[in-house]
Amino acid sequence: MNIKSYLKDKKKEVDEYLDNLLPKTNKFPAQLHEAMRYTIFAGGKRVRPILCIASFQIFDSNYKKVLPFASALEIIHTYSLIHDDLPAMDNDSLRRGKPTNHKVYGEAKAILAADALLTFAFQTMAESSNFEDRLIKKAIFNIAKSSGYSGIVGGQFVDIDMEGKDIDLPTLEYIHTHKTGELIKTSVYSGALLAGAKDEDLDNLLKYAKWLGLTFQIVDDILDEIGDKEELGKNPGKDNHYNKFTYPSIYGIKKSKKIAEEYTQKSKNYLAKINADTSILNEISNFLLERTY
Amino acid sequence: MNIKSYLKDKKKEVDEYLDNLLPKTNKFPAQLHEAMRYTIFAGGKRVRPILCIASFQIFDSNYKKVLPFASALEIIHTYSLIHDDLPAMDNDSLRRGKPTNHKVYGEAKAILAADALLTFAFQTMAESSNFEDRLIKKAIFNIAKSSGYSGIVGGQFVDIDMEGKDIDLPTLEYIHTHKTGELIKTSVYSGALLAGAKDEDLDNLLKYAKWLGLTFQIVDDILDEIGDKEELGKNPGKDNHYNKFTYPSIYGIKKSKKIAEEYTQKSKNYLAKINADTSILNEISNFLLERTY
Repeated sequence: MNIKSYLKDKKKEVDEYLDNLLPKTNKFPAQLHEAMRYTIFAGGKRVRPILCIASFQIFDSNYKKVLPFASALEIIHTYSLIHDDLPAMDNDSLRRGKPTNHKVYGEAKAILAADALLTFAFQTMAESSNFEDRLIKKAIFNIAKSSGYSGIVGGQFVDIDMEGKDIDLPTLEYIHTHKTGELIKTSVYSGALLAGAKDEDLDNLLKYAKWLGLTFQIVDDILDEIGDKEELGKNPGKDNHYNKFTYPSIYGIKKSKKIAEEYTQKSKNYLAKINADTSILNEISNFLLERTY
Repeated sequence: MNIKSYLKDKKKEVDEYLDNLLPKTNKFPAQLHEAMRYTIFAGGKRVRPILCIASFQIFDSNYKKVLPFASALEIIHTYSLIHDDLPAMDNDSLRRGKPTNHKVYGEAKAILAADALLTFAFQTMAESSNFEDRLIKKAIFNIAKSSGYSGIVGGQFVDIDMEGKDIDLPTLEYIHTHKTGELIKTSVYSGALLAGAKDEDLDNLLKYAKWLGLTFQIVDDILDEIGDKEELGKNPGKDNHYNKFTYPSIYGIKKSKKIAEEYTQKSKNYLAKINADTSILNEISNFLLERTY
């Protein structure tokens, strides 16, 4: 399997699914629907939906069934980006190579477009009838938990709270694991859960995803130091503006890369415990370690 | 039955349930949990949870089962208030008699506290095991739909979009029915749905709730013109600051009151079609028409 063409194909399928799913711009109120679509289709690697699909495929080849949930994960990720970029938060003007949502629609409408996306993700999952109601309910619960006060929002809240303050390593780890890690874990978990994976396999996948999420964040931090603006689609060096405490700022670039490699190996060790074909997730781990954007 | 003591008792039960449910302020990150609780416990009549409970009670006396959903409705309502009050939106400094969330915690944290509340509402519903998974999934779907682009967010978006512009009656009705009406409809609907009401009764309750929601909005508009700041807990006359088009501004106070009375009667006619004891909802209609806060 060629991982690059796999990622390209799945991104295309997720994009097409999202395009069919999201409210149309010829329906009232058109501008709300346009603002919802704007950041969804402003690029993005679709890491979370692809992790969900790849995890699903370990146990069930009919991956199209999981597209509503894979898409919901991307929708939740996008809502969080729109709110993070607001002037009151990280005040970012560029995201995925384009002006941020509030730069195009203004603050009030950007806040609302993101609110609509978050709510729509839950609507989409609750509308699905591709799986047993019991499994859908469990997936919704886990995805909500990873998105809220004990997940994305908790991480972003502490991140905001710490700006300009002295931060210790446990607090940095809290921000990383919550702001980014929880949704990545849930993406892997919910794919396998809906495919009917047994508890032992779900447990190994959660551990896999924990180390994958940490790697993902470290690579993000490295790219923020040395990455290319064109390729990243955002302004690198941003973290330094706020004196944020990052892996490269503590350990330097070389040691940080080494840590990312170690974490990737740890993640793959958990995949090896699963008695099924986990080669796609294995390749995704390699790809996320070596990415340049 | 004395409706005032019923409302008081149920408000107390909902408040106690919310207090147990929401994350504690002695857990990290404490300030996020504090900000989530702040607006929840800054007052409020608990209209939506009480409508959900009263509707449930028509078909099932064991109303404590529905408290997770009743509470989720109040949590969603509160998230929407926090975002509506933001400087970028309605820029309100006073809500339920207290400084608004962003006045206390700042804009970034207020946005995040509300995001955490919205997500937590879905987490709470998906965690419940008080009903068949099928019914829980259906309730989550309906509540999400009423809260998002085709409900609260849609209404608020058009409201923001219309400020300072000429507005026509259909657009005003759109704002009313979406910003306020949809969640009121869903509150009544989900209570009865979870209690196992049959389709015909659900249909009559939706029609009841539609007219109730319109009455609720007209009375809100009247109180905004002639209400008492102390009793309302917010600044009356606010709507005039933006030249908003309201019932009193079109029809005057006297005619608006007459319309509210007519709508209340229409709502009660649908209750009369249900072959069960709907006296509580009937009394709530009277109360919401005659309220002074």
